[in-house]
Amino acid sequence: MTFLTRRISVGSGSAATDVWIGPGLLDAAGSRLVSPSGRFLLITSAGPRAAAERVRRALAGRLLIDLEIDDREESKSLGAVSGIADAALGAGVRRDDALVAVGGGVVSDVAGFAAAILLRGIPWNAIPTTTGAMADAAIGGKTGVDHPEGKNLLGAFHPPRVVLADPAALEGLPEREFRAGLVEAVKAAWIADAPLARRAEETLPAILAREEGPLLDLLAGAAAVKAEIVAGDPKESDGRRLLNFGHTLGHAFEAAGGYRRLRHGEAVAWGIRAAVDLSVRRTGLSAEAAGRVADLLSRLGPFPAPEISAERLSPFLSRDKKATAGGIAGVLLQEIGKARVEESVPLQEWLDAAARISLP
Amino acid sequence: MTFLTRRISVGSGSAATDVWIGPGLLDAAGSRLVSPSGRFLLITSAGPRAAAERVRRALAGRLLIDLEIDDREESKSLGAVSGIADAALGAGVRRDDALVAVGGGVVSDVAGFAAAILLRGIPWNAIPTTTGAMADAAIGGKTGVDHPEGKNLLGAFHPPRVVLADPAALEGLPEREFRAGLVEAVKAAWIADAPLARRAEETLPAILAREEGPLLDLLAGAAAVKAEIVAGDPKESDGRRLLNFGHTLGHAFEAAGGYRRLRHGEAVAWGIRAAVDLSVRRTGLSAEAAGRVADLLSRLGPFPAPEISAERLSPFLSRDKKATAGGIAGVLLQEIGKARVEESVPLQEWLDAAARISLP
Repeated sequence: MTFLTRRISVGSGSAATDVWIGPGLLDAAGSRLVSPSGRFLLITSAGPRAAAERVRRALAGRLLIDLEIDDREESKSLGAVSGIADAALGAGVRRDDALVAVGGGVVSDVAGFAAAILLRGIPWNAIPTTTGAMADAAIGGKTGVDHPEGKNLLGAFHPPRVVLADPAALEGLPEREFRAGLVEAVKAAWIADAPLARRAEETLPAILAREEGPLLDLLAGAAAVKAEIVAGDPKESDGRRLLNFGHTLGHAFEAAGGYRRLRHGEAVAWGIRAAVDLSVRRTGLSAEAAGRVADLLSRLGPFPAPEISAERLSPFLSRDKKATAGGIAGVLLQEIGKARVEESVPLQEWLDAAARISLP
Repeated sequence: MTFLTRRISVGSGSAATDVWIGPGLLDAAGSRLVSPSGRFLLITSAGPRAAAERVRRALAGRLLIDLEIDDREESKSLGAVSGIADAALGAGVRRDDALVAVGGGVVSDVAGFAAAILLRGIPWNAIPTTTGAMADAAIGGKTGVDHPEGKNLLGAFHPPRVVLADPAALEGLPEREFRAGLVEAVKAAWIADAPLARRAEETLPAILAREEGPLLDLLAGAAAVKAEIVAGDPKESDGRRLLNFGHTLGHAFEAAGGYRRLRHGEAVAWGIRAAVDLSVRRTGLSAEAAGRVADLLSRLGPFPAPEISAERLSPFLSRDKKATAGGIAGVLLQEIGKARVEESVPLQEWLDAAARISLP
């Protein structure tokens, strides 16, 4: 199975993103990335140094700044954005210069937010170097940083002009990150693309062996699902909420573990397990479909077990942005490839579903 | 001359602003301001305490936070935005809550920027309490903060939903601020509304005596000019640049004085003087029209004299965002009520025009 470079267009007008997925894109960055002035501000982190080096060579002589930032979740702060702004303004950035973020979700969230507020907005490009960022984080225009009160509480909608997803950028990505990031990709298949979910089940061994064809097929399929949903709902009213499948309990698992115990994708995997369990009870999702989801998640794991006690989870669920007096909204599966938003699932049902999670 | 409350609509869709101008609006804030949840975050400063108190009473029982910030230009920083975000997030702000900024340009710039990035954007309302903010700062969607490298270098386009301009909010505004702010209002008349300019000349004594009718006529006229220009060009490509009349040298005068010697409006007044002088040489502006502009500015003053030495001004002009190899762009007057952008005026011509400024 070979993979031909694929282009996915997201959004329109000044908010349009061209997502390119395929091999060889890193070395072609010089011609693929967009900068009206031809000058770039490179923001990266220590992890994807090999990918960054290839981008650096592709943009030789055109870099206004070349900055490495810390890519741990703890560093995803307004201070990090301020650091990028200092470097960019100190170097004399102009409104027609463009930023390039080479890294995982933290780097693209922070650098994209810096691009959003520099001179009231300069163009930017994303070169994701994790499976999670390729399938999810770099697409859709959400940028931002955390706050002591919670994750992603400060930010802006500022889509990148171009996303380059090259499998070579995953080189050196630790196995745990690689697998956790794929959870967001299969999530996209489950909510909107049944054939993609089927292919992922069939080719998972090859995907996990990082074989280019099946891996890019999954990542491109997930990006296409996200692109289609975002196009219909750029600023998260309704359609976009489907992308939160697994995230109601996922966020609570993540927070209850102090963001150290579980990677985001791992927490979402457990959140999907519980949401599927709830779906069987509430939407009539077949036991066979639920079994297929659980099985694929097991094969993507094993993931560290989440905190499931009601006492620890309740506060995080109750302060969820989606909480109302009647319950907490969540996304349930009706069948593989089809999801719906359930507005008010009582807290107790979420807690029960969490408690029923057992190790795969 | 009595003034009936006037409504000016700026922009469209989710970026639409309703500007209301007239007496009695402060006390009607409870019904005029927009908040989807009905809850408000009040941001103000020490200066307009009487106006803030009236808004506070009008919104009694509906304030999530009530925060006073420092409104000096030195405090217009990312740190101030962060302080508002801390208070808002600590109080549990939701996406359907709205912010209200009661103050001058610094307060609306900082608070509007905080609204732009809180939860990736919450609605906001502006209640300007200076002539400059009523005529200019609160309209058009530009929000932001300064950076050690320069003014307004970090920010966002995030128009308020509602602007309430009530003359009662000017109570206690020092005479110097009152007059400096009017410069932006007559600027708007000169670039696009000749009858408004004529009325301002005729009624200036009453305007300076703060008589409601003529004062609101000028402020509403200026707001309407800005609204029309912004509607045609929300993100500053070309039409919007006309609003920069007087600002090429004005910014340089301001910066050369370390932002302490001159108020923004005062620097713009001198910048207009010089731009009119250049216009006579370059666009054929009549000496009579130039004289009318100079005369009205004299009557608005006297303003402190600007730094006019080429040595001090050159660096600030050369690093202007509008500078290219061929010269520095500026706005020139063709006749009263009609302006045009001149793309490349040589640095030396700007310096000569500055040098020709004499005290009025």
